Amino acid sequence: MIQTPPAVPGVREDEIDTPALLIDLDAFEYNLDRMATLLAPTGVKLRAHAKTHKSPVIAKLQMARGAVGQCVQKVAEAEVFAWGGIPDILVSNEIVGASKLARLCALSAIAKTAVCVDDASHIDAIERASAAAGRRMTVLVEIDVGAARCGIAAGPAAAALAERIAASKHLVFGGLQAYQGSAQHRRTVDERQALIGIATEAVRRTVALLGQRGIACPIVGGAGTGTFEIEAASGVYTEVQAGSYIFMDADYAQNLDASGKPVSTFRHALFVLATVMSAAHRGIAVLDAGAKAVAMDSGMPTVWGKPDIRYASVSDEHGKLDIGSESTMPMIGEKLRLVPGHCDPTVDLYDWYVGVRGGRVECLWPVTARGGTA
Amino acid sequence: MIQTPPAVPGVREDEIDTPALLIDLDAFEYNLDRMATLLAPTGVKLRAHAKTHKSPVIAKLQMARGAVGQCVQKVAEAEVFAWGGIPDILVSNEIVGASKLARLCALSAIAKTAVCVDDASHIDAIERASAAAGRRMTVLVEIDVGAARCGIAAGPAAAALAERIAASKHLVFGGLQAYQGSAQHRRTVDERQALIGIATEAVRRTVALLGQRGIACPIVGGAGTGTFEIEAASGVYTEVQAGSYIFMDADYAQNLDASGKPVSTFRHALFVLATVMSAAHRGIAVLDAGAKAVAMDSGMPTVWGKPDIRYASVSDEHGKLDIGSESTMPMIGEKLRLVPGHCDPTVDLYDWYVGVRGGRVECLWPVTARGGTA
Repeated sequence: MIQTPPAVPGVREDEIDTPALLIDLDAFEYNLDRMATLLAPTGVKLRAHAKTHKSPVIAKLQMARGAVGQCVQKVAEAEVFAWGGIPDILVSNEIVGASKLARLCALSAIAKTAVCVDDASHIDAIERASAAAGRRMTVLVEIDVGAARCGIAAGPAAAALAERIAASKHLVFGGLQAYQGSAQHRRTVDERQALIGIATEAVRRTVALLGQRGIACPIVGGAGTGTFEIEAASGVYTEVQAGSYIFMDADYAQNLDASGKPVSTFRHALFVLATVMSAAHRGIAVLDAGAKAVAMDSGMPTVWGKPDIRYASVSDEHGKLDIGSESTMPMIGEKLRLVPGHCDPTVDLYDWYVGVRGGRVECLWPVTARGGTA
Repeated sequence: MIQTPPAVPGVREDEIDTPALLIDLDAFEYNLDRMATLLAPTGVKLRAHAKTHKSPVIAKLQMARGAVGQCVQKVAEAEVFAWGGIPDILVSNEIVGASKLARLCALSAIAKTAVCVDDASHIDAIERASAAAGRRMTVLVEIDVGAARCGIAAGPAAAALAERIAASKHLVFGGLQAYQGSAQHRRTVDERQALIGIATEAVRRTVALLGQRGIACPIVGGAGTGTFEIEAASGVYTEVQAGSYIFMDADYAQNLDASGKPVSTFRHALFVLATVMSAAHRGIAVLDAGAKAVAMDSGMPTVWGKPDIRYASVSDEHGKLDIGSESTMPMIGEKLRLVPGHCDPTVDLYDWYVGVRGGRVECLWPVTARGGTA
């Protein structure tokens, strides 16, 4: 059952039922524009990662600013975006299982659809699904560029998979997927540049090897919000896959720029609005936003604009705040904005975005591709 | 948009699309029966906590075995259970905000509904909402019994709130809410008994004080899966509010019994089924169940029946397994059961339970009250 929307357009921010997932529309639009401006001179395209927002509404705003398409991680996400009219979708991940592959092949009739592999068994399964569906699927080879998660070794092993794709009757080789996830949250520019330098060399070597074998790479994709400027300047990546830039989160806010200050490329645009529900203990206030309202995998949220209030501990439906001595104790009923530690899994907890501007609710957008399944 | 169900009844467990939320029905029914058997001789009633399961289907199975009603934490949950035919619902939490209170008062027309307070401002707001709705709401005073989260001090302060409720024209005093959350996961019986001993004394003192003032406590509620046997034997609690006992989780599995062994009162009944999607690195396998499929607030999940495989690190849609040297490397496509670190927020990620028995899917149940909002 879908959740009741926490507000209607026009009401004041302090009238929104909590916990609620807020987009600060001014900051969000700034971020959308900023990414387009940064990428325009590089010639590298944005294929924004939809696993962050899970919303065809937001995907369309990205595409209106020049994004060539969307990345997704799962078939259920690919379905929502294809059904929602997004014309070009890359599943930047391996998909295993006959029913999922059948669903993916079916989507390719209504949207340009591609998927990644890092093993011959993946290729053979997609070939079977494509043949059964009477379609030709585009398949990229994911190479490991340092994160040691998915991805086959760069170089000859990757080239062998590319050749296997090219030799499969119902498949088209689409290029390389080369995302260095573990570089995104390294705090200094030097650390991030060093890791992406290694990634870029692995990509360059593999593209060259494929070229020697007569195989072109239409897409060379990767990069996230923490490093996309480095990949975009590499001369070898053709698409960057940043997602979090639209919202930012408390963890990304700890990345530093070249001068050693917190990066300021993008603005915080995503918040969880919470209400003080209890204040029975001196120096402690309890919010109605706990582990079911803010993802905790990248640490506690911060309290927006209140540096002397610390979100100290979490339980399922409660967040306990330590109130610094400098601050006035918040009143029961007072509403506070939290900055999630990690935006992607926080978004995934909600059915609705509440867009706010100038203290008023401007829009509600569904988190259409929310959820854990398939 | 609700998620596609990951299976249909009758298929084999290895045909379920993943990630999926599995109930082992034999273990689940064992747990339901076991709780009823343990509580029957005590005379203390079960008001099972629905924040664990969020399912009227499961609530009805608990009530068929003697539970007097359900606890919930939020108005949105109260709505789902009242609409789903549960006749007696306690919101074991403070509710703040005029629209939420209006919704709660409206529910009292179709189900016996009660709510907790720990501040005079809560009482006055509920009185206003009840008067506006033309109803009489039952209100419990939540007292702090050691967790220092919500709850007013036991004794005179609590009694003053009870008197304020009793003096409110549209309110009925329902009793005391006295849950010691921080005792539930203390590892030894001695630690749990010590903390619940303190809680019980605070409750006893407050009940006695109220008695001196001519105020009865129809409900004295509290207790969770880690301690309910202690509260049930206390002679002062009338209802226990255990929720997790139906499923158990990896964190509860670390509690010890009197002999120093892991508690074995209940069986693990909740799993996340995941598929190996990549195995490109020696000694590592990657599952399709990450932070959006298993809650991480109480640590990593364990891999069921595979003690030499460790769920080592998590990202949004991936879980990286370290494969112990003793074990055979899992194949791409192989399905593994994970035991969530924390069952409640894991359930909250899914739209569907998949009930399995004897290796086959027997039923699908919606997680009707899922979600972060209001």
